[in-house]
Amino acid sequence: MPQNIAVIPGDGIGPEVVAEGLKALKATVGADAFDFTHYDLGAERWQRTGEVLPDSVLAELARADALILGAVGAAPGSKAIPSGLLERGLLLKLRFAFDHYVNLRPSTLYPGITTPLSDAVVARGPIDFVVVREGTEGLYCGVGGSMQTGTPFEVANEVSVNTARGVERVIRDAFERAMRRRKKVTLVHKHNVLVNAGGLWNRIFGAVAEEYPDVTTDYLHVDATMIMLVQDPQRFDVIVTDNLFGDIVTDLAAAVTGGIGLAASANINPTGEFPSMFEPVHGSAPDIAGQGIADPTATISSMALLLDHLGRRDDAARIDAAVDADIAARGSEKRSTSEVGDAIAARVSA
Amino acid sequence: MPQNIAVIPGDGIGPEVVAEGLKALKATVGADAFDFTHYDLGAERWQRTGEVLPDSVLAELARADALILGAVGAAPGSKAIPSGLLERGLLLKLRFAFDHYVNLRPSTLYPGITTPLSDAVVARGPIDFVVVREGTEGLYCGVGGSMQTGTPFEVANEVSVNTARGVERVIRDAFERAMRRRKKVTLVHKHNVLVNAGGLWNRIFGAVAEEYPDVTTDYLHVDATMIMLVQDPQRFDVIVTDNLFGDIVTDLAAAVTGGIGLAASANINPTGEFPSMFEPVHGSAPDIAGQGIADPTATISSMALLLDHLGRRDDAARIDAAVDADIAARGSEKRSTSEVGDAIAARVSA
Ligand SMILES: CC(C)[C@H](C(=O)O)[C@@H](O)C(=O)O
Ligand SMILES: CC(C)[C@H](C(=O)O)[C@@H](O)C(=O)O
Repeated sequence: MPQNIAVIPGDGIGPEVVAEGLKALKATVGADAFDFTHYDLGAERWQRTGEVLPDSVLAELARADALILGAVGAAPGSKAIPSGLLERGLLLKLRFAFDHYVNLRPSTLYPGITTPLSDAVVARGPIDFVVVREGTEGLYCGVGGSMQTGTPFEVANEVSVNTARGVERVIRDAFERAMRRRKKVTLVHKHNVLVNAGGLWNRIFGAVAEEYPDVTTDYLHVDATMIMLVQDPQRFDVIVTDNLFGDIVTDLAAAVTGGIGLAASANINPTGEFPSMFEPVHGSAPDIAGQGIADPTATISSMALLLDHLGRRDDAARIDAAVDADIAARGSEKRSTSEVGDAIAARVSA
Repeated sequence: MPQNIAVIPGDGIGPEVVAEGLKALKATVGADAFDFTHYDLGAERWQRTGEVLPDSVLAELARADALILGAVGAAPGSKAIPSGLLERGLLLKLRFAFDHYVNLRPSTLYPGITTPLSDAVVARGPIDFVVVREGTEGLYCGVGGSMQTGTPFEVANEVSVNTARGVERVIRDAFERAMRRRKKVTLVHKHNVLVNAGGLWNRIFGAVAEEYPDVTTDYLHVDATMIMLVQDPQRFDVIVTDNLFGDIVTDLAAAVTGGIGLAASANINPTGEFPSMFEPVHGSAPDIAGQGIADPTATISSMALLLDHLGRRDDAARIDAAVDADIAARGSEKRSTSEVGDAIAARVSA
């Protein structure tokens, strides 16, 4: 029986890149391996109906075997849609409702890819690491509020909530991944200032590390991590960090490895209780939407993460190989979104 | 009558770089312009006496005309000193007690300085911006705690508290600085997730911007800011942001403009009610302490910020010019901490 994949193309360039992701996916597994159900969610739906994510849709999505998300969100300065409405009501809602506690973001600098880093930094060696970002807690939990709002006396609070269970399960996942890689885990936090949350992360990191004597461990403050990511990204194998630091670290990681156009991500519920969700790291990029110029590579690579998650290791490897080959063959010539998708799909089928 | 400068050399490389800062300062204004009082605070004092910052010392410091701080803090993994004890008990205590709401961190890429950025990025044009980091609120406020600590049920919270007054005064400062520069202010936040704090920052930013019609404004999410700092740092003139984002942004800014060894900072109380504090952005770097190899340039440049703050514009410009000239003359040859200090002091006196 075909597995069910729920597809949420979303806003801006979301639908454009998702179309190419599906093209690559079908080229890999055939047209009938999956049933795809498209869900019309995002800015347009909200503006039309006032609905962000109706409970009935959430219940349907929960029955899917996996989710593909393009991107949601209006332009940062937009007055049409309240800031955060779609991000919190749809993207984060799904991450939280489906307990996606592992937000996995691999970063590899492929040969031939333009990077903003100097030749001297690149020459230090291959850049290949993965960030395991916690996805269900921290400052993303939505706890907080404001009082006397709009007055000169307003106080606005945001609360980062961290639980031992939440921290332990994501740290454990990071160590498991490290065992299948170069066996090094770096904890990124700011425990010299955030002593409560940092203390918790630190203690659990230390305790889990004892169970993995083969794994080398390392700690960096988030500010120092910024420096290392541009001066010595080779030092990283697996980074584990909280939700907000992970957001910041992975955009910089994407930038130094050739840009957000290449950065894939998976929002994983490792227990399988809920479907996992696969999406590019980039946003809806309203400034270039509708022009057919968005790079779909990140979405296509996210399809490899999806196949891997569904146990189709070989199929995942075929997409990865096709993406690698396409990237290696890329010149300076600009291709349209669908040209990139066609090229990768052709390589997969070849 | 000479002004009183309180000097806290601190830990690790702090005393080494502060010695060179004072050398440059004296070479600029003469030995008698300031009275210097040294305060023995930091890791060593705490280990000896259990005191971090006695109230009597805080009261003395409050009467100084300015403070110079080297660096405080033990090594991240150190078991000897509880994480955050010195940072929160001394450095942050001073920033909060003396209401240093403007944490000013200029970033300039000097010609000839090695940067981790590619030639293509550097060739886009001069990199010269300043970060106005809020210094007295946000996640640094110390509000938070943990319960069932050390158990599998621990919950650890950190609260970011933002007030209209606190946000407005720092945003206003950023616009004032922009008026004396290239007239552009970028607000960095994450208002799509941190809707309460982000809403407050946004609204006040918009309101203040209306009073400065000559200033161009811009907004970036903190994650997108990471990308811009490595792909297009030229786009920035003045960045205004909260305490934690400012911490992260300024380390990356320092890295792309030649490293933390060059990054100066000022913790300013613009009202003059309390003394302002001048310190390098870098930390105590216990790994290289005692070897005489730390770069004192950041501390020396911080002395220019001190002189500027005390109204000695010309003297500040002389230090800046000496630092610029020294940087321009730097080859690949390694110099000791005191050799760099001597060279810059000689240029100031010349
Ligand atoms: C759109 C936004 C809510 C989201 C996040 O902050 O997690 C995005 O930046 C990401 O990294 O997936
Ligand atoms: C030492 C630490 C508390 C401090 C901070 O986080 O503000 C430092 O990183 C800085 O940027 O001045």
